[in-house]
Amino acid sequence: MSQKGTQSIQFDEAPYIISSASIVGTKEGEGPLGKLFDVVGADDLFGENTWEEAESTLQKEAAALAMGKAKLAKEDIRYLFAGDLLGQSIATTFGLMELNIPLFGLYGACSTAGESLSLAAMAVAAGFGEQVLAVTSSHFASAEKQFRFPLEYANQRPLSATWTVTGSGAFVVGKRKTKARITGITTGKVVDYGIKDSMNMGAAMAPAACDTIYRNLVDFGRSPQDYDKIITGDLGYVGQEILIRLLREKGFDISGQHMDCGIEIFDRETQDTHSGGSGCGCSAVTLSAYLLPKLEKGEYQRILFVPTGALLSTVSFHEGKSVPGIAHGVVIEHA
Amino acid sequence: MSQKGTQSIQFDEAPYIISSASIVGTKEGEGPLGKLFDVVGADDLFGENTWEEAESTLQKEAAALAMGKAKLAKEDIRYLFAGDLLGQSIATTFGLMELNIPLFGLYGACSTAGESLSLAAMAVAAGFGEQVLAVTSSHFASAEKQFRFPLEYANQRPLSATWTVTGSGAFVVGKRKTKARITGITTGKVVDYGIKDSMNMGAAMAPAACDTIYRNLVDFGRSPQDYDKIITGDLGYVGQEILIRLLREKGFDISGQHMDCGIEIFDRETQDTHSGGSGCGCSAVTLSAYLLPKLEKGEYQRILFVPTGALLSTVSFHEGKSVPGIAHGVVIEHA
Repeated sequence: MSQKGTQSIQFDEAPYIISSASIVGTKEGEGPLGKLFDVVGADDLFGENTWEEAESTLQKEAAALAMGKAKLAKEDIRYLFAGDLLGQSIATTFGLMELNIPLFGLYGACSTAGESLSLAAMAVAAGFGEQVLAVTSSHFASAEKQFRFPLEYANQRPLSATWTVTGSGAFVVGKRKTKARITGITTGKVVDYGIKDSMNMGAAMAPAACDTIYRNLVDFGRSPQDYDKIITGDLGYVGQEILIRLLREKGFDISGQHMDCGIEIFDRETQDTHSGGSGCGCSAVTLSAYLLPKLEKGEYQRILFVPTGALLSTVSFHEGKSVPGIAHGVVIEHA
Repeated sequence: MSQKGTQSIQFDEAPYIISSASIVGTKEGEGPLGKLFDVVGADDLFGENTWEEAESTLQKEAAALAMGKAKLAKEDIRYLFAGDLLGQSIATTFGLMELNIPLFGLYGACSTAGESLSLAAMAVAAGFGEQVLAVTSSHFASAEKQFRFPLEYANQRPLSATWTVTGSGAFVVGKRKTKARITGITTGKVVDYGIKDSMNMGAAMAPAACDTIYRNLVDFGRSPQDYDKIITGDLGYVGQEILIRLLREKGFDISGQHMDCGIEIFDRETQDTHSGGSGCGCSAVTLSAYLLPKLEKGEYQRILFVPTGALLSTVSFHEGKSVPGIAHGVVIEHA
């Protein structure tokens, strides 16, 4: 039995992250992690005609790169676990269809990187596949069109707003031994604190991140110090403060371990992204390019990766609904 | 090892469908299956103010009913596997958040009932949960607003168009023995024949249904006669014809076994739904109210349930993209 506590799993035969790849846009390439990504696009259309096609191309390229690094052909991949932020997940559909691999389409907003890695690890641990692929993406321009305003409006953004990362991360999860192992997961619940401001998603998602991290620590009987880093997806500066305060109220101080991909990926002083980066791609490319190499080298022994998602649409927002959050935790260990 | 062929799984310890529930709108209540559903709403708003809230209520009620029938509390459910058709899956988010159960959000368009049952069965078979819940929904009015025109426009619909079912089906999958067992799954790939007509989704989805049914028969070494019924989700009359022809070209004649939930749920002569019903809810409520009881009684010994999805959004459609399809097969046997 590998169930742990009320909402976690510890894998008896923990699957490995065999390879990963990251591809990002120009702004991400100019940021603090710029030199670490596998590919930085020359422009943000990636040779396509629309922002949506550009995002599809990101997924296609990231998937191909990850399989190439693992020296695997698409026939070697049993399942795809993939998703994006766009309505009806069109970036995923059109990006991955040529792979011709059975697809489990996912939607977890910006938490999808965590959701896809969780299901990928579950499938491999259970023997349902030797190798599976987890892919997620976001694109600044397709997301602005989907959730806010077309870029041409040039509207002003409040300081609490985050900047959707243009990027895709792909991960081959399987049985072949490497230096990085997914040893457990903590699957998130929808958590709603009633926040209604879609320009302050850090605040909307922080309670969900708090809930998942809290459950992870309790389910595994760990303290924050048992992790070298506890890494949220895209809370940004505003959400980080709230998360640390909320967890303190529950008896855990993660201020020494906490890191946020949205904070790492852009430079606060020079890149004018306000509260930080966001999007499915934000946590995925940061894990692939920045966190995994440190873990593989042994600089980190164990991390808790917690992509965070804000569950809204323009329809729910315009109908006056709140912005609930969700966060999926993935425990990754040096092997 | 339970992998079967190139894209199927046979469960060594096949999980059971412990209970299920169906709730539908007025038009579905007036249809041929009307008397079989657990709940038929008095009107299609289900006491809410918006169509989206109405759809959320459908999910909430279906989930509660299914758990009630199984005499399970929400604390007994380890995971939710759920999704709907709306952008960013808001019907699911707002419908299920009060359950406070870890959620894997899914998007497979109208194939989501098959996707959610597949992942639910995988999770239980692998020992990741004693009981999990698979929930999907669609609502005619929220779907028309999302994909076509607001109802107030009163636009005309071509004869190839289908009518989105207002309904939600929920299934508790677990280890407790019942008369219905999920013995295998065949997970679908994205299949694109280049159809660009969003008012002819039967044609767009038929190739995906063909692909999944073909793979299922080959992977399990079965002929169509090994199933009492092969049931697609919502191909409608137009898609049914194409599916049967495509499978004949591949050497299988399923004309004696084929059934389509979209054809069953409405009366062609009197209900003016053109090609038939569609939507995530269509296959889910038909399985719960019509197919499972026959299987539990032994009238069917083995069925192949294949919900079908059309992977489009208004954005992809307006950008001139095709409408790819996907279909997820679930083998359910009398136990």
